[in-house]
Amino acid sequence: MNANDWIEQVAWNADGLVPAVAQDAASGEVLMVAWMNRDSLERTVESGEAHYWSRSRRSLWRKGETSGHAQRVLEIRLDCDADTVLLRVESVAGIACHTGRRRCFFRALEPGAHGRRWVETDPVVGAEQANSDG
Amino acid sequence: MNANDWIEQVAWNADGLVPAVAQDAASGEVLMVAWMNRDSLERTVESGEAHYWSRSRRSLWRKGETSGHAQRVLEIRLDCDADTVLLRVESVAGIACHTGRRRCFFRALEPGAHGRRWVETDPVVGAEQANSDG
Repeated sequence: MNANDWIEQVAWNADGLVPAVAQDAASGEVLMVAWMNRDSLERTVESGEAHYWSRSRRSLWRKGETSGHAQRVLEIRLDCDADTVLLRVESVAGIACHTGRRRCFFRALEPGAHGRRWVETDPVVGAEQANSDG
Repeated sequence: MNANDWIEQVAWNADGLVPAVAQDAASGEVLMVAWMNRDSLERTVESGEAHYWSRSRRSLWRKGETSGHAQRVLEIRLDCDADTVLLRVESVAGIACHTGRRRCFFRALEPGAHGRRWVETDPVVGAEQANSDG
């Protein structure tokens, strides 16, 4: 068995990417969804810190490299189709979103007088980041 | 304001899709990640039951339509980039995966004598489904 078989068992898409869901290991909150390529998954495993692939910047990034809000990875899981990864993480400073919120999913769909709308439910708890090191 | 503005505020990708993460509202477990188009999101909101888009079959599917393992949707959230949706759901029969497991993320990456490998950690708790009504 080749030592890197586990990487090739992931069903990378045509762009060589899979979505990665980061979940807070303590609270269970879903913090964010970003993308990974082989290199970012390998670095995540080796370093124990979440690395993602930025599709807009076409570059690898370590979560927290500009914000300081790193993610220590406690567990990596793979789904039945092998095309999505789940990370259980410790979120440094309790902030995962580049807007300074705990999680990127800070809006909820709610009914309103003029139809449904996305309502911000979560407060900003830390400094915002200029870039989208989400 | 148009009543369907909330749908257009979602950043649908070039194929008109976004990933949707389904999370068990009670346990906090991340159950599965599937894809949605506008139609599936709209039907999910209107029916209160999760509908997804199958990229392989190129068709809309209601979760549980063949398995009986529907998902009642308690909340729909949107992330900062508006390109991923999070559903908080009640998972009928406690089974989300077409393999008969509670969740699709039933494998964890673990170290081994011959390198890392994906290890099945979750038992099958219900009937398997022939198709991938995951």
